[in-house]
Amino acid sequence: MAIVEVSIIPLGVPGPSLSGYVARVLSLLRESSLSFELTAMGTIISGDLDEILSVVRRMHESLFSADVTRVLTQIKIDDRRDQPASPEQKIRSVMEKFSR
Amino acid sequence: MAIVEVSIIPLGVPGPSLSGYVARVLSLLRESSLSFELTAMGTIISGDLDEILSVVRRMHESLFSADVTRVLTQIKIDDRRDQPASPEQKIRSVMEKFSR
Amino acid sequence: MAIVEVSIIPLGVPGPSLSGYVARVLSLLRESSLSFELTAMGTIISGDLDEILSVVRRMHESLFSADVTRVLTQIKIDDRRDQPASPEQKIRSVMEKFSR
Amino acid sequence: MAIVEVSIIPLGVPGPSLSGYVARVLSLLRESSLSFELTAMGTIISGDLDEILSVVRRMHESLFSADVTRVLTQIKIDDRRDQPASPEQKIRSVMEKFSR
Repeated sequence: MAIVEVSIIPLGVPGPSLSGYVARVLSLLRESSLSFELTAMGTIISGDLDEILSVVRRMHESLFSADVTRVLTQIKIDDRRDQPASPEQKIRSVMEKFSR
Repeated sequence: MAIVEVSIIPLGVPGPSLSGYVARVLSLLRESSLSFELTAMGTIISGDLDEILSVVRRMHESLFSADVTRVLTQIKIDDRRDQPASPEQKIRSVMEKFSR
Repeated sequence: MAIVEVSIIPLGVPGPSLSGYVARVLSLLRESSLSFELTAMGTIISGDLDEILSVVRRMHESLFSADVTRVLTQIKIDDRRDQPASPEQKIRSVMEKFSR
Repeated sequence: MAIVEVSIIPLGVPGPSLSGYVARVLSLLRESSLSFELTAMGTIISGDLDEILSVVRRMHESLFSADVTRVLTQIKIDDRRDQPASPEQKIRSVMEKFSR
């Protein structure tokens, strides 16, 4: 299972607020069965890597419209295969070292 | 107030687990008065940009040791000045558009 | 045509040098018909987005081995559709504004 | 000596072309004594890390204006201290493994 952080934003749309665009691309993710968490700087998705990349590809595409002609998409894949990995376990693992 | 995502990892240390290193650099952040949240893919810090960059610079430095001779640090700054911004407000703003 | 920057590195391999791994994943890109340029911080690929993502997916996979159990892959997609875009044209466009 | 890739873009400015803004922030870098290379996806700077971060901080600040109220700045630091590192040497090191 991979853990992927993704950020998809339009460039060249007037006005500094992008939350409407973020909500639009996230609706595609919601329709999938992948588990995800919205953060202030992106969205963290976990699950099968091919399934994640397929949804992200559609999210990227969905942002284009008459008004949006340029999209900047960033994908960060953390793929660990020596042991099961989940977003929760990664955070717990750091926190445990903290408390010692 | 800026919102900054940071990821600081050592390269070339044996073994795929990095949580001990992450805990070490985060201890410097804890000693600051900046508010932060650990995610599965990085740490999100909010506050005065110069103060954040100063702590991140020290976090980066603190990872070097006899065993760690290469450090990869990534910093993503979202700096919005037309209105007050916080990590919580950014997420809320997307969620509100979701529920409509 | 999209312009994509990609960085694929193994985590947890002993020693700070990663060039052997970078050369290995790049060999897959060389076998494709995509045009690319190696920089000091990643590889910039241009062409059809689906074709690029398909090669990048294989590059990511190819790094896993008995010794490499964790791979960090970062993909940055700049997809502009209002006019033809190429890496050369993007750089030229900035340089022209410089010289004025 | 560190190798740093930086990308500084305004969010919310009308129109998909950003080259004028990129040229503006690069003018600050040109006035410094740091060596840099413009790529299609960012700018690669090499030199003393503190000096680089200080210029990048000013580049980020310089983009704000009446029209630009939100700036997205990304900084990727590759800091290797076991041996001298330069952008040219990093690329050469990969190319040598290629040709074997």
